[in-house]
Amino acid sequence: MSGSLAVIGIGPGNPQTLTPEAADALDAADALYGYGPYLDRVPSRAGQARHASDNREEGARAAAALRHASQGARVALVSGGDPGVFAMAAAVCEQIDRGDDDWRKVELAVVPGVTAMLAVAARVGAPLGHDFCAISLSDNLKPWEMIERRLEAAAGAGFVIALYNPISRARPWQLGKAFESLRRHLPASTPVVFGRAIGRPDEKVAICSLDSVDPSAADMATLIIVGSSLTRLIDRPGLPPLVYTPRSTPGAGA
Amino acid sequence: MSGSLAVIGIGPGNPQTLTPEAADALDAADALYGYGPYLDRVPSRAGQARHASDNREEGARAAAALRHASQGARVALVSGGDPGVFAMAAAVCEQIDRGDDDWRKVELAVVPGVTAMLAVAARVGAPLGHDFCAISLSDNLKPWEMIERRLEAAAGAGFVIALYNPISRARPWQLGKAFESLRRHLPASTPVVFGRAIGRPDEKVAICSLDSVDPSAADMATLIIVGSSLTRLIDRPGLPPLVYTPRSTPGAGA
Repeated sequence: MSGSLAVIGIGPGNPQTLTPEAADALDAADALYGYGPYLDRVPSRAGQARHASDNREEGARAAAALRHASQGARVALVSGGDPGVFAMAAAVCEQIDRGDDDWRKVELAVVPGVTAMLAVAARVGAPLGHDFCAISLSDNLKPWEMIERRLEAAAGAGFVIALYNPISRARPWQLGKAFESLRRHLPASTPVVFGRAIGRPDEKVAICSLDSVDPSAADMATLIIVGSSLTRLIDRPGLPPLVYTPRSTPGAGA
Repeated sequence: MSGSLAVIGIGPGNPQTLTPEAADALDAADALYGYGPYLDRVPSRAGQARHASDNREEGARAAAALRHASQGARVALVSGGDPGVFAMAAAVCEQIDRGDDDWRKVELAVVPGVTAMLAVAARVGAPLGHDFCAISLSDNLKPWEMIERRLEAAAGAGFVIALYNPISRARPWQLGKAFESLRRHLPASTPVVFGRAIGRPDEKVAICSLDSVDPSAADMATLIIVGSSLTRLIDRPGLPPLVYTPRSTPGAGA
């Protein structure tokens, strides 16, 4: 008998951004799996088992959750932000694709959430107001040359760029190199937004420009938005500036 | 005395995906502004005024909401999905940038929500599991040549592509042309997902391949995800197939 697996996005981590659908799915589970700090953000319920694992073990965590579900349990896998964006949903699909035949019989539900780029963008205005892309800067899973090619293609074509996984102890120089690549395609004044822990007590948001950006101000949990050449700042008396990308471009028909 | 304006993302439209933060912001408002069908999805509260407007009037709607807020009211502007993604947050910033000086004094909050591409992706697996971009196919606000250039840059560089505003009565041929451009860069078997009204009674999700895609199956409210060359289908006995993009690419270091 096959059980079910819900891969649940808890958003940026403030309970106010957890959807009712995600809260219900968490509550209905017999067992929760997840990266420790994400599990800590989820209310506990009596009788519900918790299996915390390390950040680096996505594949093993997905397999453990699928194995448990294939034995008939209702299992939930807790994901930060949205599970479909550089998070657990793809790791689960990879395991289903490669793993035990029984895992294909598990009823799988992915519960979407507010991903980091939406939360950070909301805090400063509307930097993603025009075409944009999301790139993981981690070269653990793809070659660095591919990342550079994508950064240059995106900046050259006028996309606003959201950078996930910008830096870590094992990847100290990549973010600086990425900004170097982007400077070849974008004006020095292009707005850059750093945001982390949106809606949590340790929230941090900073706005700078591409020529003055400091890669060491980012950490593993920082989401970075690099504007396009059209992204603008609005100064406001007594309020922080707004960053936005206009919906229309020069040369538009309308 | 300046009031406040909250630009609120209500997600795909099912109350189960409305965040508590968005629900509280809706409840706190003296007046709601929005496109009629979005307003209809929001619970009404006694004493709260409602100002519905047409789909095409984003600029005028944003200006009306700012004007009302600048008179001291607590105003909420209701946006489908996430307000920062091809929705009302950028329209509001544009009005603040160009409009009355008093509008800069309005306390502005953008409340993020689950945008359509996350909701559609969740329904089918994890098609956005690797680097991806979001492109509005509307050439009302940018030239069609720019859209084609972006489609080709994105497909050529290996991004999964989410298409917003794919088709309308006034824009009948653009989606077909977009698929033609994409076929020049992607395998015929590339998975394509059409999704609309996720979580609502009229939800529709369909999976096809790039060579067999039918543009006329889309409408204004459809969100389309076009895979990269790495996006895969998983067949499952007795369950719909999964679509996902692996996190790692051939040639990755790890």
